[in-house]
Parts: sequence; C-alpha cells; structure tokens
Amino acid sequence: MPHTKDNYIFKPDIERISVQGSKDTIKVPFNKINLSNGDSVLVSTVEGPDVNAKTLPKVNEGYTPYIIDGDKKKVKKTQLDFAKEGKVTDYMEYVAIRESFKSGENMPFTPEDVCSQMAKGVAVIPSNINHEECEPMIIGKHFSVKVNANIGASSLSSNFDEEIKKLRLSLRFGADTVMDLSTGIKDLGGLRNAILRASPVPIGTVPVYEALDRAHGDVNLLTWELFRDTVIDQARQGVDYFTIHAGLTKDLLPHAAKRILGIVSRGGSIMASQMLRHECENMAYEHFDELIEICHDYDVALSLGDGLRPGCISDACDKAQYGELENIGKLAKRCFEAGVQCFIEGPGHVPMDKVKENQELQEKFCNYAPFYTLGPLVTDIAPGYDHITSAIGGSMIASYGTAMLCYVTPAEHLALPTENDVKVGLITYKLAAHSADLAKGLPGAKLRDDAMALARADFRWYDQFALSLDPQNAYDVWRAQMPEECAKSHEPAFCSMCGPRFCPIRLNRKLQEKFNK
Amino acid sequence: MPHTKDNYIFKPDIERISVQGSKDTIKVPFNKINLSNGDSVLVSTVEGPDVNAKTLPKVNEGYTPYIIDGDKKKVKKTQLDFAKEGKVTDYMEYVAIRESFKSGENMPFTPEDVCSQMAKGVAVIPSNINHEECEPMIIGKHFSVKVNANIGASSLSSNFDEEIKKLRLSLRFGADTVMDLSTGIKDLGGLRNAILRASPVPIGTVPVYEALDRAHGDVNLLTWELFRDTVIDQARQGVDYFTIHAGLTKDLLPHAAKRILGIVSRGGSIMASQMLRHECENMAYEHFDELIEICHDYDVALSLGDGLRPGCISDACDKAQYGELENIGKLAKRCFEAGVQCFIEGPGHVPMDKVKENQELQEKFCNYAPFYTLGPLVTDIAPGYDHITSAIGGSMIASYGTAMLCYVTPAEHLALPTENDVKVGLITYKLAAHSADLAKGLPGAKLRDDAMALARADFRWYDQFALSLDPQNAYDVWRAQMPEECAKSHEPAFCSMCGPRFCPIRLNRKLQEKFNK
Repeated sequence: MPHTKDNYIFKPDIERISVQGSKDTIKVPFNKINLSNGDSVLVSTVEGPDVNAKTLPKVNEGYTPYIIDGDKKKVKKTQLDFAKEGKVTDYMEYVAIRESFKSGENMPFTPEDVCSQMAKGVAVIPSNINHEECEPMIIGKHFSVKVNANIGASSLSSNFDEEIKKLRLSLRFGADTVMDLSTGIKDLGGLRNAILRASPVPIGTVPVYEALDRAHGDVNLLTWELFRDTVIDQARQGVDYFTIHAGLTKDLLPHAAKRILGIVSRGGSIMASQMLRHECENMAYEHFDELIEICHDYDVALSLGDGLRPGCISDACDKAQYGELENIGKLAKRCFEAGVQCFIEGPGHVPMDKVKENQELQEKFCNYAPFYTLGPLVTDIAPGYDHITSAIGGSMIASYGTAMLCYVTPAEHLALPTENDVKVGLITYKLAAHSADLAKGLPGAKLRDDAMALARADFRWYDQFALSLDPQNAYDVWRAQMPEECAKSHEPAFCSMCGPRFCPIRLNRKLQEKFNK
Repeated sequence: MPHTKDNYIFKPDIERISVQGSKDTIKVPFNKINLSNGDSVLVSTVEGPDVNAKTLPKVNEGYTPYIIDGDKKKVKKTQLDFAKEGKVTDYMEYVAIRESFKSGENMPFTPEDVCSQMAKGVAVIPSNINHEECEPMIIGKHFSVKVNANIGASSLSSNFDEEIKKLRLSLRFGADTVMDLSTGIKDLGGLRNAILRASPVPIGTVPVYEALDRAHGDVNLLTWELFRDTVIDQARQGVDYFTIHAGLTKDLLPHAAKRILGIVSRGGSIMASQMLRHECENMAYEHFDELIEICHDYDVALSLGDGLRPGCISDACDKAQYGELENIGKLAKRCFEAGVQCFIEGPGHVPMDKVKENQELQEKFCNYAPFYTLGPLVTDIAPGYDHITSAIGGSMIASYGTAMLCYVTPAEHLALPTENDVKVGLITYKLAAHSADLAKGLPGAKLRDDAMALARADFRWYDQFALSLDPQNAYDVWRAQMPEECAKSHEPAFCSMCGPRFCPIRLNRKLQEKFNK
C-alpha cells in the first residue's frame, strides 16, 4: 500500500454481501468490514448508492394486490393493515433480517416480532408503493436508532445537482431516511422526482412548503384544496412520509405568542399564518380524515409535525409544546385506527434535565408511536457547533426510547448546510444513534466497539480506521503526525500521543502474560 | 463596519470590567458582552490573557503568613485548613464574586458558602503559593462546571513555542485549568516554568511523566526517591495540582489483565510497570503520607488519578475501575484530614446507561470530593470525532454533579492535538459544561441563552455572533451565504435557511401583536 503524507485515499476492505430471506426477492444487503486478523463486522446498508447495483430489489411485492391509478399504483392494504391482521409481509421479513444479521446472533428480531410491533403502532416501515427504489427499513424504539438527513434547495442557495450530490453523500454516510425540504425553486416536483428515483431510503417532505409555493408565497391564496392537491401529487410521486403540522390548533396560538421565539417551525408557522389570515382552524386538523385517506391509498406514513417545538431553552416544555403534543396523540390514534402508519416529531431546544420528561410524555400522549426528534439542542449559545449541542440531547433522548433522530448540521441557525456540513452532521448523528443503541443494549451493537478496542490493543491501525465512522479522516489525522518509516509498517506499536518510548498499550501484553495463564 | 466575503474579522463589543471585593487586592475580572439593544451579558474571565493587563492581581495574599523556603514560599495553612477553621480567605471571597456576578443576582454564592463547601471537602481552589500569576477559581459540584485543557510537547511532536501558543489559545477559548502533559523533551522544567509564568489559571501535571524521563525512560531506574524529588521540584515551581495514580494497587492488576485494553492511562501504566518490574506495591500508595506533606507545604491540590480508567466500552465499570475508585476514596479521606485539597479523576469510556452510576459511586466512595472526568466517551467507533462522543458523556455526568471536565479533542486516539484541535475541543467542552450548568439550574446560567434567543427573535445577527462561543466562526458561516446587500444592513430580517420570502421568525411579531396586548 503506497504512503504519502498527502492525498492518500484510504480504502477499507469492505465487501458487499446479501442475506437471502424466504423468497428470491428478499435479499438484504450488508457491508462486511474485513479486518486483518480475519475477523469481520457487518453493517446494515442499502443497495442503492452502490453504482454497480443496476437493478434495485423489487421488495415492494409485499403489497400485492395493488390497484392501478392512471400511471401510478394504489394499495388496498397498508403494511399496518397487514400487521393488524397478523400477516407477515415481505417488508417485515426484510427489516427483520436487516435488524438482525449485524448482531452476530441468530435472528434476535423475527419477522413475527416486527409484525407484532407494527400491529401495536410502536414501529413503522415508511414505504410508498410508488417509491419502488426504496429498500424497507423500520423505525421503532425496539430497533436500532435511525438518522434522518435533511437536504433541499432554497431560492437563495443550492441547485438541482447539488441536492443529488447531498443525497448521495447522505447515503454514503449512513442516512436512514432523507427529507427533501426544498422551497422557492422553479421545478420542485422535478427535483423531488429526481431525488426519489435516486434514493434507496424513504424520502420525507413537508407538503405545505410546496403548497405555499403554488400559492406564490401568499398565505391569502393558500387554501385547503390547494394543500390537498399538493399532498395527493406528492403521494402519487412516491414520497414515503409527510410531515404535517395538524396538531397546531388555534387555541394554542396565544401560548406561542408568550414565548421569546414563538413558532420556529417553518411548516408550523405557515399553518399559523394561514390561520391568522383567514381566522380559521388549522386546515390539516379540520380535514385530517381526508389526509388519512390519501396517505392510506399509497401507504404514506404521517410524521405528525411539532409546529410548536421550542426554538430556545426558555421556550422548552411550555403549554404550547405540550398542548400540541396532546393534540398529536389524539391524531396518532386516528391514524392507527385507519391503518395509516404514523410517527411523532419532537423538539427542538430542551435543557438536559427535561430530556427524559419529553420522551415520557410523548409515550404517554401518543401511546408509544415512534418518536422522531430534532436534537434536542441542550443550549442556545453555540451556533456553528449545534451538531454537537443537539447530538447531546439526541443521544440522550434516543437512549430513553426515541426511534429516529433528525440530524442537525454545524450550519444550523446560520445558513443552509454545505456538503461538508451534511457529512459532519451525519457522522455526528450516526455516533449519537449508535451510542443510544449501546445504552439500550441492542443486540450486536457492541460488536463494532469491541472490534475497535481489540484493534487498538493489537496496534492494528488500519483496522481501526476501517471500523471508524469516517475512515479517511481518522487515517489523515493519524498519518499527519507519524514518521514516514513507521506508518509504512501499517502497525507501529505506538503512536504520536505518547511516542515510541513508553506506550501504555504495550504494557498490557506483559500484564496479560503475567496474569492470564 | 466593512464587509467583504472573505477575511473579515468579527470583533464583538466586549468590555473588560472588574468587580471590587472587600479589599483593594480583590478585583475580579469579567467580560461584558455589550449588545446593540443596550443589554449586556457578563462572562467570567481572567486578567492574564489580556496583553494589556501588565500587573497580575496579587490575590495570593490570602496565604499570609507564609514561610520563606530558599527562593520559594511555603504555606503554614492551606486553603482547606482555613476553611475548616471557618476562616474566609481572600481566595474564597474572590471565587464567590467570580461565581456570582455573571448571574445577574445579588451574590447567590457568598464567601461563607464557599468556605463551608471547602470545609466539607466538596469544593477546592487549586492554588500553589508559588504560582502567583494564578487567579483563584473553584471546582465543586455546586458551582459552575469547569473545563480543563491538556497541552504538552512530546518527543515526536510539538515544540516550546507551540505549547505557549496552545496555552494562550486555551485561555482565549475559556479553559479553567490547563494540564501540561509534556514528556520526552530536553527541558521539561523550563517549559513548565514558561507555562506557569504565562498562566492565570491553575496548572496541573502528572509528575511521574517527568520522573520517568529523569530515569531515562527506564522503569528499572524509577525509584520512590526519584519520584518524590520530582514532585518536590514541581511543587516548588508552582504547579497547582498533581495527578497521582496512588489508588492503582497491586491487587487490582489481575483485574486489569482481564480487560480488552488493560491500562490506558499513561501515568497508571508507568506505575503498573514499575510495580511489575520491582514486584512491589504502588510507590505513591506506600508513601502517600509523604506526598500529602509535600502538597500541604505549597497547597498543591491532589488530583487522584484513575490509572485504571476503562479504555473502551467493554472495559467500563469493571472490578478494576471500581476497585481503584474505592481505594481512591480512602486516600481522599486522608488528604482531607491532613488539610490537603483533593479531587478525583474519572473515566474514560462508559456507555450512556452507566454514566449516572459512575457519578453516584464516586460520590459514595469519595464522600462528595469533586469529580473530574475525561469525557466519558460513550462509544469507541468514532475516532476523529471523539470530542463529540466524549462531550455527550461529559455533559451528562456534569449534569449529575461532576465538577470539572477534561476536554477531549478531535485528535484523541489518533495524534497529539493541533492548535485547531485545541480550539475545537475547548469550544465543545465549554458548551458541554454550560449545558450541564443549565440542567443543574445554576444561577444565571440561562441569561446568555435568553440573550441569544432574544437576539434571534429581533434579527440582531451581530449580537448572535457576539453571544456565541465562537463568534468568528458563526459570522463566517452566516456570511458565506448572505447576499452582499443584505449582510450590509447588519440585520436582514431573514436568513439563507428559509430565504427572504417566508420567515417563521417574522410571523412571531404578528402573533405577539395579536395576542399580547
């Protein structure tokens, strides 16, 4: 392996394998990180971002029979309907394999477990029948914690190609779902279609963004009909989950007005503007049954949005936030009863001492529907570092049961994320999610940590890089301070921190020789 | 104010003020961040790093009468001795002002509070009488969480000037104490002296590093006498606290041998090597009374080191770690009885679900002596991002009562920190410590967060940068995406995230007009 101080591309030995389910169509991909001592570690992945994978798996056969609706498909039954009947679908088997095989154990999660979790509404598989490229994944507190990455163009920044690049980058660094939050560009539908067609992970949107764009940015022109039509168009296109801020009811607005930062959710504030302008109730709340029907047609999951999430520490855990959460709990019940999968969005900005309370109240009000939080950020004073302030709250709340974390990038509060921000945000959230998996005692979560520790004990430096969340960066930092000759050996039995003369790790061999006979 | 896309130096309006105590010599400096709306926020600081402050405060008058010992001073009574007698010293008054005035309240911490906390051994003021440049600060769970920065040259990396640069950088970004971990360079004493003379914050060391250097790196030559003489020399020089791994007793070595990563503490492994080579008990444990005596002479605080801190998730919370902690608890009692201030070092690598247990056991075994932890890191798989994995554990454990956090930089496990690593590590730990202060409900902690939230509500962008932990970076990220014309106004009522057309924050003014009459 050639070594130069600069521009050396570190390529870990990663093999793509797949685990076959009970049918030919159920083939679940994993990355197998091969280590120099013969060990290996499995990591869940998707086929999609591999440019060599020309044909995507046709995993959505589990929906048959479906209905033809023009050039699109509709379902008769959603995954939730099947689950309630106790019918294990291909999707459920697929995610059971996906959650199980990295654990090194014999199926700690069975397809029947998945089915029963879904039948209780405690886990969801977002999977619009018209997003054929999507490889099934599950969101629920008993499974591994998932990470969502937001991308999206705006009128001030970003373009079409850049968004596809951000999507691919998100996939490369392990995003489990991606939200397209584009606004204010000419061809929103075209961009979304490109994203859907390129994405093997579920795509979420906030349909009211496009509805406002269709109303030329004027809330006076924003009607229920316009909103509904946008929702239908996006559902037909293949969007896997919709964030809809239906819990932000009129009676809560005076509570929001008492805050320092009022409403900071963009979707929530569009809804609130419309309510103020037309002096009406929240249109998504009023027409919630119609929204449920549309979502059922395509098996779109509803991500019930927290339009009143606190935007600063001072606003956390107030009447506005918890009042909306209670509303959302009731809406979640209606979704569940109608066979529409749903999960619940959460804050926001919350001090550390209130993080657990947020999880507990969500479970109480929403009957354990999966919680999906944005952080929470545990202080307001670190713009530029809010991937970290939010990873603290995010890892904590995930360890208490939150099923999916929406990443926050270093650009939060300041600008739209650049490509590097997307990368840093994702790695930060992957480590937060993984830390929560460890804390929950998820089967197999510790295998990768243990492999890392063993590689450290053996001075297998290249294995350490291969096992890390950002191998190239780990290699670069290490390499910059290692003398040329030492790095060449791959495994110098020291590092730049203590230098070659006295190394604590080397001592351990002596300790083990003496005591472990 | 001139605006260019590049190289604009953002200079917040910060005024250095000082609060006068009961004597002329007690003058406590603060940075007053002045905001454009007339508000201001006080932040604790030191005079030292301000190049304009030519004369450092002579705050160690509180020690009088002292004894002249050649060209150095010795104390008759330590700060702890005074506290036990109920005598409030100048140091105690100084730190009471320092902890109080940023709160905006009228002395929530009185000098008598400080005295009574110290008299119980629950708080310490590390302050070697021969470090005259040191401005008193307090470490204890009832006060603000402190952050230590490690610097230090090694044989492979770094030089004299670079270390002083790192010291100044650490001070600039708010390090409350600094440890000099230099090893393997020619003039360790000279470098340490330069650091002490330039440092207005307490300096800590691990004396066994220099002792091993004096033994030419050969543990065969490392004797108690050599170690003791090193400790005396460093104490006379002015080091404020010593990390000494006296709790790592012989009987614990077999437990360490069972681990994946055995001993990862450098100091701990030097002690263990010496014990293995000479088949003896830990020399610091055997001669602990002599160490106590030396520390008492100069009022050096003992930082009882965790030589058996776990180096990976798998090794956390085992017999080796907790056995050492029990030993340390007994040593802490001896320190306290002898009038020597002490605090306790903690892990390391610990999964999130065990973080609270670590704090609770430390308090139980060590009778609430201040806890000083390295992170803990909550996963092993993110080298290059271990400032984040450790800030998660660090902020959590600090919210449970840990008094000081030792920073971890992005270089951890890979290399020695560069200047940029020092900066990123410190900002990460300042935000972790502050988040814990918020969670503990520390008086005044929320003022800066609230000022930030108000600045966000008012689109006072420049105030937001001024209030943030890294103003220049926040400005740069924001500026990179703002159109030239908009940034010029200082306060465009939008940002690049949502663009000018629809801004949630603007809506809040309407909400407030409607409901808050």
